[in-house]
Amino acid sequence: MNTLDWNQLSAAEQAAALRRPALEQSGREAQVAGIITKVREGGDAALLDLTRTLDRAERDTLELTEAEITAASERVDDELKAAIELAIGNIEAFHRAQLPTPVIQDTSPGVRCELHFQPITKVGLYVPGGSAPLVSTVMMLAIPARLAGCERVVLCSPPPINDAIVYTAKRCGVDAIYALGGAQAVAAMAYGSETVTKVDKIFGPGNAWVTEAKQQVSSDVDGAAIDMPAGPSEVLVIADEFADADFIASDLLSQAEHGPDSQVILVTPSRDFAARVDEALARQLTALSRADIARRALSESRTFICSNLEQAAEISNAYAPEHLIVQTENPRALLPRLKNAGSIFLGAWTPESVGDYASGTNHTLPTYGYARTYSSLGLADYQRRYTVQELSPQGLRAIGPAVELLAATETLDAHKNAVTLRLAKLEKQA
Amino acid sequence: MNTLDWNQLSAAEQAAALRRPALEQSGREAQVAGIITKVREGGDAALLDLTRTLDRAERDTLELTEAEITAASERVDDELKAAIELAIGNIEAFHRAQLPTPVIQDTSPGVRCELHFQPITKVGLYVPGGSAPLVSTVMMLAIPARLAGCERVVLCSPPPINDAIVYTAKRCGVDAIYALGGAQAVAAMAYGSETVTKVDKIFGPGNAWVTEAKQQVSSDVDGAAIDMPAGPSEVLVIADEFADADFIASDLLSQAEHGPDSQVILVTPSRDFAARVDEALARQLTALSRADIARRALSESRTFICSNLEQAAEISNAYAPEHLIVQTENPRALLPRLKNAGSIFLGAWTPESVGDYASGTNHTLPTYGYARTYSSLGLADYQRRYTVQELSPQGLRAIGPAVELLAATETLDAHKNAVTLRLAKLEKQA
Ligand SMILES: [Zn+2]
Ligand SMILES: [Zn+2]
Repeated sequence: MNTLDWNQLSAAEQAAALRRPALEQSGREAQVAGIITKVREGGDAALLDLTRTLDRAERDTLELTEAEITAASERVDDELKAAIELAIGNIEAFHRAQLPTPVIQDTSPGVRCELHFQPITKVGLYVPGGSAPLVSTVMMLAIPARLAGCERVVLCSPPPINDAIVYTAKRCGVDAIYALGGAQAVAAMAYGSETVTKVDKIFGPGNAWVTEAKQQVSSDVDGAAIDMPAGPSEVLVIADEFADADFIASDLLSQAEHGPDSQVILVTPSRDFAARVDEALARQLTALSRADIARRALSESRTFICSNLEQAAEISNAYAPEHLIVQTENPRALLPRLKNAGSIFLGAWTPESVGDYASGTNHTLPTYGYARTYSSLGLADYQRRYTVQELSPQGLRAIGPAVELLAATETLDAHKNAVTLRLAKLEKQA
Repeated sequence: MNTLDWNQLSAAEQAAALRRPALEQSGREAQVAGIITKVREGGDAALLDLTRTLDRAERDTLELTEAEITAASERVDDELKAAIELAIGNIEAFHRAQLPTPVIQDTSPGVRCELHFQPITKVGLYVPGGSAPLVSTVMMLAIPARLAGCERVVLCSPPPINDAIVYTAKRCGVDAIYALGGAQAVAAMAYGSETVTKVDKIFGPGNAWVTEAKQQVSSDVDGAAIDMPAGPSEVLVIADEFADADFIASDLLSQAEHGPDSQVILVTPSRDFAARVDEALARQLTALSRADIARRALSESRTFICSNLEQAAEISNAYAPEHLIVQTENPRALLPRLKNAGSIFLGAWTPESVGDYASGTNHTLPTYGYARTYSSLGLADYQRRYTVQELSPQGLRAIGPAVELLAATETLDAHKNAVTLRLAKLEKQA
C-alpha cells in the first residue's frame, strides 16, 4: 500500500489524500431515458423485447411461476439453506429491534401532538445478476421490507435467475419475482406494466445502467423514490500495534476484491505494524481467485501513519467511510469519537464479512462520502413518519391567540380567521 | 368549488381528478448553474456582488454582527415575542420527544449489533424574504437542529432581513445569520466561502431559484444534502354533515391564500354540506387581504361527493395530501384508515393554522404526492443512523461457518478467508 505520514502532509495534501476518484459520468443518460420511455409505452411486450436484446435471455413471461420457484428451491443444497437460515435469524432479530414506537406528546394542556409510522405501501428490490448469486442482497433488502409491514414486495433480477436467489426471495416473503434486469427492471418497477407492480420506492445495488435509471425515476414524482445514492464500496481500518497483521490484511483484501474501484485505507500510529500488514497482504494475495481485481484496488490504496488513535478517528471522520473497522487494544473506547461511518466493526473477531452476511446489521450502506448525511439502510427506510394533532377547546383557547398573532405577522388573514371564527364560537357556547 | 360525484367517475377520470398540475420546468438550470460556479470561484466577493445585482441590496458584510442582531431584537415588540415563546415551547416539547434511543441487540450469543444516532455536523437553514417575515419557518427549521445536537447551525435570508426573523433565529440558537438569498445563498452554504460555513445539509423552502439550486447542489457529493423535494402547498379536507361549514371554509381558504397554485380538495359524503361550504367560502372570501390569490386557487379546487367516510379515506390515500384535515363526528375513528398524509388535523378545534405555527408539529411537510414515501420533517432529518457490531470469539465461532459458506457462494474468497484465518487462530488458542 502507498504509505503516507499524515503529519508530514499540508492541509491541502491531507484533503487530496482523502479525496475519492471522480465518478465516471455514466454517459448513458439518453440511452437509459430511451429504455424508460420504451417500457412506459410498451409495457410487458417492450420488457420481453428488451430482455431478449439486452440480456440475451429468451422468456415468454416476466414473472416466475410457483412451479419455477418450487423447482429452483429444491435445487438449492441443504447446507446453503442452513447458512441462509442462520443469517435470516440474525438479520430479522436486529431489524425487528428497530420497529419504532409512536410518539404521543401533549405540548400544552389540550394540545396533543403525535408522530406515527406507516410502512411504504409497495416496494421493489433489485438484485444484480452475474455468475455469483447475491443471496445476501436478497436478505438485506427483503427482510426489513416484510418487518416494516410493506403491503407488496417485488423483486427483479436479470435472467437466468440463480436458484439460490429465487429460494432466498421466496423464503424472505417476496410476493413476486420478475426475471428482469438493468434499466428496464427499474423502469418497470417505477411505472408498472401489465405484469409488473408499480412500486413507491426502489432498493438495491446495480451497475451503471441501474444506477442511472434509479436516478432518473427518482427525480420524477410519477416514478419511484430510491434508497440512497450509489458509489464504489470502501473501507477504512484503524489499527494499532496490538492488532493482528494477518487479520487486518484479510479485511483490507475483503474490500479490495469487491472491485478495482474499491477504496482501501489503513490508518495506524505504528509504521512497523503497517509494514507487517504489507507483508501479510503480499502473502495472502497470491491465494485469491480475484487476486487481479484486489491488486488493482490495492494499487490505489493508502496507509496513513498518524500520531495516535484520536488523530486516526479524526482522519476517519473526515473521510466518512462506508465500512469502518477498528482493531485496537480497546476498540470500544474509540467509539464516542467516531462519526460519519456507515457501519463500524469493533475488535479482532469482527471482520467486515460478518456484517456483509450474517451478524444482523444491514450491508446496504452509504458510500463515497454520503455517510456524512445518509444513514445505513434500516427498517426506517421502509417506513415513513407523519404527524397527527388534535386540540380540545381548552387547547385552542390556550394557543389560539398566539397563532392569530403569528399568522397576522406573516400577513396570512385566512390562517388567522380559521382560529378567530372558532374562538368566537367557543365564546358564544360559554 | 368544482363539485364532482366520485362514484360517477370512471377509474381514469378519478385518477385525472386527483392529478396535480404539472410543475413548470424552472428553465433556470443554466442560470442557477452559473450562479453556483460564480460563488464557488469568487467566494465572498461574488456573493456580495450577486446580492447587489440580484437582490438590489447594498451590504459590505455577509454575516450579521452581534450589534445588528441586538438592535433588531430590541425592535421586535413584546407581544410578538410572547407568541414566539409559546410556539417555541410547544415545538421544542414535541421535537424533544422524538429524540431516539440507540438499539442494542444480541442477535446470537456473542454477536452484538447496535443502531446509533449521530447529529449531522453542520446544517444550513434557508428562510425566504419578502414583505411578511416567516418567523414560523425559522422556528420549524432551527429548533430540531439544536435539539438534534448539530454542531453548527447557520441561516440565510435575503437582505434586508426582517427584525422578527433575526430575533427568532437568535432565540432558537442559530450560530450565524447571513444576509443572503436565492441560489447564491444555497451555493454559499453548499460549498462555503471565506465567511459562510460549508454545511452538510440544507433545509427550508424557497422560490424556483432556491429550489433549482437545492436540486443541483444535492446531486453533487461535494455539495450538500437537502431536506425534501419541493412543490406547491395543498390540503385535503374530509368532512361530514356534523362539521361546521364556516370552519371548513376557513380551513380551505387558509390553504388557498398560500398561493394561486395551492391545491384545495374537499371530500364529503354530503352534497348538502358541500353546498353550505360553498356559501361560507363566498362570504369569507370578501374579507381577505389575499382574496385574489385565494380566488385563483379555489378556481382549480375540487369537491368530491363520496359514498361514505371509508371511501373518503381511500380518496385521500390515493391523493397523498401534504395537510389532511378530518372534521367528522368521530375523527379519530378514521385515523387507522388514513395513509400517505404529511400531517393530519383531527376535529373541529384543530385548524391547519395551529400546525403552521404553534401546536408543536413541524410545518415542513412533503407535498405534491411525495407524502407517499417522504416523511414530515422531524428530529430524524437532522440526525443519521449508523450501525456498530462486535463479536466475541464465541460469536465468531457460532456464525463464522455460515459466513464462510455464503461468501464462497458469492465467490468472494477474501471475505471467506477473513473468517477462516480467525477461526484457525481460535482453534490454536483452544
Ligand atoms: Zn464486503
Ligand atoms: Zn398554511
